[in-house]
Amino acid sequence: MATAGKVIKCKAAVAWEPNKPLVIEEIEVAPPQANEVRIKIVATAVCHSDLYYLLEAMPKDGFPTVLGHEAAGIVESIGPGVTEFQPGDKVIPIFLSQCRECRFCKSPKTNQCEKSWFNVKHDGKESRFTCKGKKVQSFTGTGTFSEYTVVNQIAVAKIDPTAPLDKVCLLGCGICTGYGAATELDCLIVHQTAGAKKIIAVDINPEKSEKAKVFGATDFVNPKDHDKPISQVLAEMTNGGVDYSLECTGNVGVMRSALESCIWAWGVSVIVGWTELHDVATRPVQLISGRTWKGSVFGGFKSKDGVSEMVKAYLDKKVKVDEFITHNMTLDQINDAIELMKHSKCIRTVLNISPE
Amino acid sequence: MATAGKVIKCKAAVAWEPNKPLVIEEIEVAPPQANEVRIKIVATAVCHSDLYYLLEAMPKDGFPTVLGHEAAGIVESIGPGVTEFQPGDKVIPIFLSQCRECRFCKSPKTNQCEKSWFNVKHDGKESRFTCKGKKVQSFTGTGTFSEYTVVNQIAVAKIDPTAPLDKVCLLGCGICTGYGAATELDCLIVHQTAGAKKIIAVDINPEKSEKAKVFGATDFVNPKDHDKPISQVLAEMTNGGVDYSLECTGNVGVMRSALESCIWAWGVSVIVGWTELHDVATRPVQLISGRTWKGSVFGGFKSKDGVSEMVKAYLDKKVKVDEFITHNMTLDQINDAIELMKHSKCIRTVLNISPE
Ligand SMILES: [Zn+2]
Ligand SMILES: [Zn+2]
Ligand SMILES: [Zn+2]
Ligand SMILES: [Zn+2]
Repeated sequence: MATAGKVIKCKAAVAWEPNKPLVIEEIEVAPPQANEVRIKIVATAVCHSDLYYLLEAMPKDGFPTVLGHEAAGIVESIGPGVTEFQPGDKVIPIFLSQCRECRFCKSPKTNQCEKSWFNVKHDGKESRFTCKGKKVQSFTGTGTFSEYTVVNQIAVAKIDPTAPLDKVCLLGCGICTGYGAATELDCLIVHQTAGAKKIIAVDINPEKSEKAKVFGATDFVNPKDHDKPISQVLAEMTNGGVDYSLECTGNVGVMRSALESCIWAWGVSVIVGWTELHDVATRPVQLISGRTWKGSVFGGFKSKDGVSEMVKAYLDKKVKVDEFITHNMTLDQINDAIELMKHSKCIRTVLNISPE
Repeated sequence: MATAGKVIKCKAAVAWEPNKPLVIEEIEVAPPQANEVRIKIVATAVCHSDLYYLLEAMPKDGFPTVLGHEAAGIVESIGPGVTEFQPGDKVIPIFLSQCRECRFCKSPKTNQCEKSWFNVKHDGKESRFTCKGKKVQSFTGTGTFSEYTVVNQIAVAKIDPTAPLDKVCLLGCGICTGYGAATELDCLIVHQTAGAKKIIAVDINPEKSEKAKVFGATDFVNPKDHDKPISQVLAEMTNGGVDYSLECTGNVGVMRSALESCIWAWGVSVIVGWTELHDVATRPVQLISGRTWKGSVFGGFKSKDGVSEMVKAYLDKKVKVDEFITHNMTLDQINDAIELMKHSKCIRTVLNISPE
């Protein structure tokens, strides 16, 4: 490409400081360094974690930054040492890396590569973004709220070239996180195919009821409709509690309810919603009596392998993606997209950044 | 026996109220009713749970009571409907029942029989103890700090008649709880046979160091010897954290440390120490990053089956029991035994109640 080796000037949504609207700016994206890939972002979605970081992030030194980590794009150029990618490849960047070399990548017991963005200390040097002469960070090492971004190759998945990028971008985070956790645990979406009797979606937004049924939920419970604690409502619906629960909100009160909604002797509750601000708590007897509390990042999938496989599964119509997209917008409308998510008015908003 | 069908007058240690010394009293033990077994206790040990109930129990209506749940004895007589036991059988009563009929007993996923003492509401009618005209409760349905007790047959294990009761009484709780949890999880005692490299015992009593090594610990850490949090000390000793941790104290601070001492990607922490007074807490990220928090009652063993098998394993010298006994006393000395445990000065004190 004509741009290879050169700084690219392009549009990005910059978060200058916490809890303020993003600002569409012209930024400079430096060429990829060793083991890095520069990607033209075609589509990116807005995820709860972007919101969480923007609204609640503790590290004040985490700004300015380009948020965004659920995207798909096309390789524009590659840095030295990159052999797995070529310009023109369709790719999905991932917040979780898969270096294939660390003891975690080599173990089948985990997908937590020790080189992942959130496992290493950052000195700011790893970002290729600059704006108005200031270094701008790249959230989760992906920074996809931008026309171009640079990502380390250990955090980029090559995908089937026939995949529609404005759809499969969702496989970069949310769907894999939920689907993987559910697949692994025989819960939620997958309960249906596994012949389970009840899949109960819980949400305070009644508008999500219909959507939940599309994804296989047999029941929908709105905590606002009940005076009793939700764990008690669910226990009564299920003869003592659910076998599995999946907590996606990042709210520690909901995490506790999700655990306590499980049946004591063998219930398993999985946390996928992220928060670093508060402790989550329960009575020890909730665990001693047989419940298991665990967490999951990216649905337990080894990240690069998992994304490529999920894209294939989508193309084979084995995984639903399109149904999660409730809104389409442009990069300029990103603050509207954030508001929708903040008020639980959408499932996913896809921002169409560049044509394929 | 000459006593069958009659009320037996005998000695017992009665806990009249919380946080007071036990009082040796003459009590009446009524004959067993339907499905019950009256047992002459030969030996009983003192366990943390007795202490916990005595010192911290919330339900003031849980007194007066006869504590004790780690014992062995001989069937004196049986109630109507009991076919599994005969007078003269050697038995171990268990705080956890195994009715073999409920959905939990029928599931291989749990040992939590729904008819266990702590799973059902008590109206006091199920105790056969009376003292000075007052009904006296039977702690965990076993009440073994007494020369005689009455236990429902679903909570009694028949054991090999050659077993020494003043030793195998320990298989009624502590050893099964610890050993089972460890066996299931490849930790502590069992780590040794499974070829693990490090088994680290953690205790604030330095005198336990030698004892820990008898049971296979390769290392002993006393938190008092370190300024750093114990989770950090253990992480440094083990390249990031332990694979498994087992928390036995019932202290919620220790429970948190035990979880956070595990390695993030796949560490499993198991709570076996009991408390109902406080919440246990951690940062959600501790779980999201791959740790699992669970609990275990009675080591996960189906109770009646497990005890019988563990007695056999002891007789076959596959399980250590004698080494846990640090003190032998009589029923009259029970308050001394409680003091020893309170100050962490013993592993197990066995009270010799009656000759076999
Ligand atoms: Zn996300
Ligand atoms: Zn790795
Ligand atoms: Zn015990
Ligand atoms: Zn049962």
